[in-house]
Amino acid sequence: MSDNPSFVLRGIEDVVYEERPIPEVTDDEVLVEVKKTGICGSDVHYLLLAVSAALSSRSRWFSDTSRLESYQKVKNLKVGDRVAMEPGATCRVCDDCKRGRYELCPDIVFAATPPYDGTLARYYRIPADLCYVLPNDLTLEDGAMMEPLSVAVHSVSNIAQLRANQSVVIFGAGPVGLLCMAVAKALGARRIIAVDIVPSRLEFARGFAATETYTPSPLQPGEPRLAYSERNANIMMQTLGIEERGPKSIDLVVDASGAEVSIQTGILIAKQGGTFVQVGMGAAEIVIPVTTLLVKELNFKGSFRYGPGDYQLAIGLVAAGKIDLKPLVTHRFAFKDAIEAFQTTRAGKSPDGKPVIKAVISGPDVPSEDPL
Amino acid sequence: MSDNPSFVLRGIEDVVYEERPIPEVTDDEVLVEVKKTGICGSDVHYLLLAVSAALSSRSRWFSDTSRLESYQKVKNLKVGDRVAMEPGATCRVCDDCKRGRYELCPDIVFAATPPYDGTLARYYRIPADLCYVLPNDLTLEDGAMMEPLSVAVHSVSNIAQLRANQSVVIFGAGPVGLLCMAVAKALGARRIIAVDIVPSRLEFARGFAATETYTPSPLQPGEPRLAYSERNANIMMQTLGIEERGPKSIDLVVDASGAEVSIQTGILIAKQGGTFVQVGMGAAEIVIPVTTLLVKELNFKGSFRYGPGDYQLAIGLVAAGKIDLKPLVTHRFAFKDAIEAFQTTRAGKSPDGKPVIKAVISGPDVPSEDPL
Amino acid sequence: MSDNPSFVLRGIEDVVYEERPIPEVTDDEVLVEVKKTGICGSDVHYLLLAVSAALSSRSRWFSDTSRLESYQKVKNLKVGDRVAMEPGATCRVCDDCKRGRYELCPDIVFAATPPYDGTLARYYRIPADLCYVLPNDLTLEDGAMMEPLSVAVHSVSNIAQLRANQSVVIFGAGPVGLLCMAVAKALGARRIIAVDIVPSRLEFARGFAATETYTPSPLQPGEPRLAYSERNANIMMQTLGIEERGPKSIDLVVDASGAEVSIQTGILIAKQGGTFVQVGMGAAEIVIPVTTLLVKELNFKGSFRYGPGDYQLAIGLVAAGKIDLKPLVTHRFAFKDAIEAFQTTRAGKSPDGKPVIKAVISGPDVPSEDPL
Amino acid sequence: MSDNPSFVLRGIEDVVYEERPIPEVTDDEVLVEVKKTGICGSDVHYLLLAVSAALSSRSRWFSDTSRLESYQKVKNLKVGDRVAMEPGATCRVCDDCKRGRYELCPDIVFAATPPYDGTLARYYRIPADLCYVLPNDLTLEDGAMMEPLSVAVHSVSNIAQLRANQSVVIFGAGPVGLLCMAVAKALGARRIIAVDIVPSRLEFARGFAATETYTPSPLQPGEPRLAYSERNANIMMQTLGIEERGPKSIDLVVDASGAEVSIQTGILIAKQGGTFVQVGMGAAEIVIPVTTLLVKELNFKGSFRYGPGDYQLAIGLVAAGKIDLKPLVTHRFAFKDAIEAFQTTRAGKSPDGKPVIKAVISGPDVPSEDPL
Repeated sequence: MSDNPSFVLRGIEDVVYEERPIPEVTDDEVLVEVKKTGICGSDVHYLLLAVSAALSSRSRWFSDTSRLESYQKVKNLKVGDRVAMEPGATCRVCDDCKRGRYELCPDIVFAATPPYDGTLARYYRIPADLCYVLPNDLTLEDGAMMEPLSVAVHSVSNIAQLRANQSVVIFGAGPVGLLCMAVAKALGARRIIAVDIVPSRLEFARGFAATETYTPSPLQPGEPRLAYSERNANIMMQTLGIEERGPKSIDLVVDASGAEVSIQTGILIAKQGGTFVQVGMGAAEIVIPVTTLLVKELNFKGSFRYGPGDYQLAIGLVAAGKIDLKPLVTHRFAFKDAIEAFQTTRAGKSPDGKPVIKAVISGPDVPSEDPL
Repeated sequence: MSDNPSFVLRGIEDVVYEERPIPEVTDDEVLVEVKKTGICGSDVHYLLLAVSAALSSRSRWFSDTSRLESYQKVKNLKVGDRVAMEPGATCRVCDDCKRGRYELCPDIVFAATPPYDGTLARYYRIPADLCYVLPNDLTLEDGAMMEPLSVAVHSVSNIAQLRANQSVVIFGAGPVGLLCMAVAKALGARRIIAVDIVPSRLEFARGFAATETYTPSPLQPGEPRLAYSERNANIMMQTLGIEERGPKSIDLVVDASGAEVSIQTGILIAKQGGTFVQVGMGAAEIVIPVTTLLVKELNFKGSFRYGPGDYQLAIGLVAAGKIDLKPLVTHRFAFKDAIEAFQTTRAGKSPDGKPVIKAVISGPDVPSEDPL
Repeated sequence: MSDNPSFVLRGIEDVVYEERPIPEVTDDEVLVEVKKTGICGSDVHYLLLAVSAALSSRSRWFSDTSRLESYQKVKNLKVGDRVAMEPGATCRVCDDCKRGRYELCPDIVFAATPPYDGTLARYYRIPADLCYVLPNDLTLEDGAMMEPLSVAVHSVSNIAQLRANQSVVIFGAGPVGLLCMAVAKALGARRIIAVDIVPSRLEFARGFAATETYTPSPLQPGEPRLAYSERNANIMMQTLGIEERGPKSIDLVVDASGAEVSIQTGILIAKQGGTFVQVGMGAAEIVIPVTTLLVKELNFKGSFRYGPGDYQLAIGLVAAGKIDLKPLVTHRFAFKDAIEAFQTTRAGKSPDGKPVIKAVISGPDVPSEDPL
Repeated sequence: MSDNPSFVLRGIEDVVYEERPIPEVTDDEVLVEVKKTGICGSDVHYLLLAVSAALSSRSRWFSDTSRLESYQKVKNLKVGDRVAMEPGATCRVCDDCKRGRYELCPDIVFAATPPYDGTLARYYRIPADLCYVLPNDLTLEDGAMMEPLSVAVHSVSNIAQLRANQSVVIFGAGPVGLLCMAVAKALGARRIIAVDIVPSRLEFARGFAATETYTPSPLQPGEPRLAYSERNANIMMQTLGIEERGPKSIDLVVDASGAEVSIQTGILIAKQGGTFVQVGMGAAEIVIPVTTLLVKELNFKGSFRYGPGDYQLAIGLVAAGKIDLKPLVTHRFAFKDAIEAFQTTRAGKSPDGKPVIKAVISGPDVPSEDPL
């Protein structure tokens, strides 16, 4: 059966438009009609896609009994539900999957990584348990933001275990950093200090979720990076009234920049016994002030993807009105303009100069400006 | 009153022998007659002392009623108890002290740091709750080892939360590394892999607590350190049958070396979702493969000093026969030879060439070879 | 020196008014001028007092140099600070104090328990670290509520570790229950279901912090209590759409009622793997459905007093506007009417029939209606 | 294909012997040749079976290509491996499965519960990831004990998080209690106090894993059970030198008896801030001293089945020589005598009067006395 217009990733940066067969589903899978697909800026080189979609009426595709039977095995969904989808399917049998750390599954399969069909299509098959029903007051465009939001939830809630009234510094005010700020705010953080070198990003952060912003002073010519970070940390602590212990200390530092000087500065300003979460990918190796980390007994943790419970919390926080995703969707594209969407995301701005935070591509039959 | 022969630290490397007054004690303090004092090799530049001592019959010093009264307020000790002592007195009122992290107390006062009198004396005053009664089958020399053992307990049990049947790699087979191995063994670790570049240290480690040992291949001329660490990690994983997940993975890496290449190698060989504890102090800053740390979601933690419960566990493990401290005491000195003891520890070996693991100094009236 | 009008508790229910000397303070204590004292309804039989006060200018009392010196040792306060005070002073040397569980200290000394002077006086001496500076936008009356609020913070945050988006059922809409609801709301709970048998209390709860309320159906004559609880739990789950697992489940049950049927019902409705916190004191022994607790792997925890960090979080949540304590102060008394305040609290309502949630007594020189 | 002699459970207590077809396996399943099957005493009414088995050479059953292909998908096993098997297959898609709590999966399917074929057969099909390779030095009879041992590991390690040097009291010296003692010993507990009313059981416990034993004094005629428990707790604490805090306190109480008086006594003797784990099933409802639980801030937890990591730890502890299962296998039966095995287990002793701890049934072609 063929009624499934699709963009197919044949290799790195090799996308073609094709008519593809409608996927067949197994007992524990469902067929989803894709309505809105978000592009993850940091992953655009892999074209990994965050996805929101609607379960359409599927009766016309499933005329034979056996399939209808399988429908009865899916308990968490019913035909017509509006859902957000986890893009990665894990193996469910490795130790990491079974002990509640499926983000570490070595056999995770992501949508759109060849040879798997992606979500830039009319129909997409997916295990039913990876679909989360969207409450009525969330748009499908909100749903298309659930993957990056869940990555932020994973960092700030699951890995960092941020608690209400704590103080947070977040380095990097790009999409991941902004979403981490939004999660920190939703979890009740007292101070949320955004750090970036681009003033317009900090301005956006302040209007969005940060309580304070900070622009590091520039690196001096010839200044070693760690010396710069020490100087920067000292100025930052004085300017913002940060101490290494007590009520003015920073419980949590999140680095969403991947920049060496951010990580160094973050270790230097963190509270004794505090937590540092690395979620931003940048240089593969960096210099850290390890003795400082030791004498402060910091807890320096990597955060990768999203894990159990993260989608539920992400949806819950948006549904409760604690996070507003709408200001983050800066660019919208029709299905036919998908390649332009990736090019714009990669460039970081559209031809009119407007910076991209998040771009969303609509499904084949969906108006691009309607968040649904 | 003066009957207290003492070595007094007047400044860095400025130690003099003096007759000092017997200290007066307050309500919640006790006067301890010092019998054995251990020297902490890594701290020898500060002359911070780990101490074991016996509460002697003190009636002749305390003839007035008010003092005797204060004796009645001390509940955990009685005159004559043999005790091990924590060398640092914390403030008890800061947030870190009150939340159970007193190792981070900024106002901790250590024995022997000027202007405070040290334990190289006949009598030493100390808050009673910092004294831990030694079970009968522990010698006072065992007691003199409790401070470094507690540092290892802090790293491996308190900070790393090692559990039975886990696999551990420990970089550095000096005193701290050896004690970490002993604790790992006592807690039931399955594999305890000691890594060092000195073959004789590994030989000792194997006889003491390690289940396996590994000598890294040498750095090639001109080879960048991280490239070397990657090469080293690959060989180590192949040689020892280590994987990044599953039953052959390394749950915990402890770095007790402070060496950059050890830390790099440790991050590369650790299990996904595993723990890395930094207890060894070395270079203040080092290069780490941060992306590896991120995608594995490692938990990289600093471990500093000892904290609540560590002395109790240290004593308990020795009392249960799970740790034998005797092989670690390689050198013994009489009270009058205290300065020689520090010189020997600093040199790393005695004039006869015997390497120092731990040196113990006896009290003024105590035979140096008798462990008491 | 005598300038300290005081109510003194000589024994159970034996309170007298006296002129008492102004207390002398030690190095690490401060003298506090008491402005507002809250009465804890559940503790009224012990007359344990929650206290808020202001550090007045104390220069006139401390003219001698030695005392002024001791002032310099207090770091967290300065003369004139407005503070909330922990009413219990712990020993600081027992294992529980040192491991961060000082609520369990067996030697805790509470204000107003004979022979210790209480806070119903002009001046009160207290260790400086038990005083927490109130932000400017909190009234001293807010400060007088910090002890009961901290008890709720202890239950819901510290012991239960409630996280955002979780669902909570709280049995008992008295002062402790209401404060638990307020904390649950401040921590971002999704559903906060208040259960009580008094409709007016539920009405108040709904306006204050609950998202839903539930009135249990009455016990039938002759119906065994556990049978009743099972019936009640079933109706409650149907009525409110509660399930034992999944998105409609109850992550946390808090019993602030002390009633056997509440505890039974709570165990029956809690989520698999969920948490139950017992904070309400009632019958010393009760029947529980232990097999249900077992097969659900519930975590049934006692919560007692407040512990490290609880005051800071309590003050922080009020300062952030996440908790409004004002509606809870239903009755205000002048210093001279302190005994009437206790009688009213014990009766549960004033002569005009108005139910008491919280009563606050002002200091000797303070207008009772001004929250300061 | 039919070559599979089987005992089949048609209903409660309705077991028949049949020739059954050899099961067909899917991609991620394996076919196991069953060699030793343990009987779980507490589950004998359901005839749920703990199973150990050997993967025999299966080439003769799998001649067609498609099956061989599926073999290539199983990574953790190879033909011929000797394995222990988890008897319950979970759904892998519910929240509890995904967050690492699969013991709570509502859709768990146990071996031998109709209509599923059980392990009392020559061949048994099972998902490959539920099979754990046995180290060479473990017998298949050891493997048949892994299910009950994992239940004990779940209680003492996973749920209670027992750590080395802690003190434990275990009520009930039946199979589960004995295995909990063995796990406590293997994890390095300092005191392991076994409590039972049957002297011969305590004698066995002392020789097996307990460090101390205690026989409660008898209930007096007409004495209320809670009053008895209080009396009993006081005597027990005096006799054994137990205190509610400090070094003589009981960190963990495990009730493996299900008896009300045990649970009551356990709550009364536990340490402040300690843990109580309920693993024994008995009366569905019991009276507990809830105020004691509250003021001690006990953590009272249910423990059900086994969860992620429990089998690995169970096998690891036996392989390390820390647990010896051999003394627990008191009765061995040939395949044809399976019904007698159940009858003996239910009776609690064989016709010769020998008490049953564990009975093991051999596979159809296996000598019953050879542990393999």
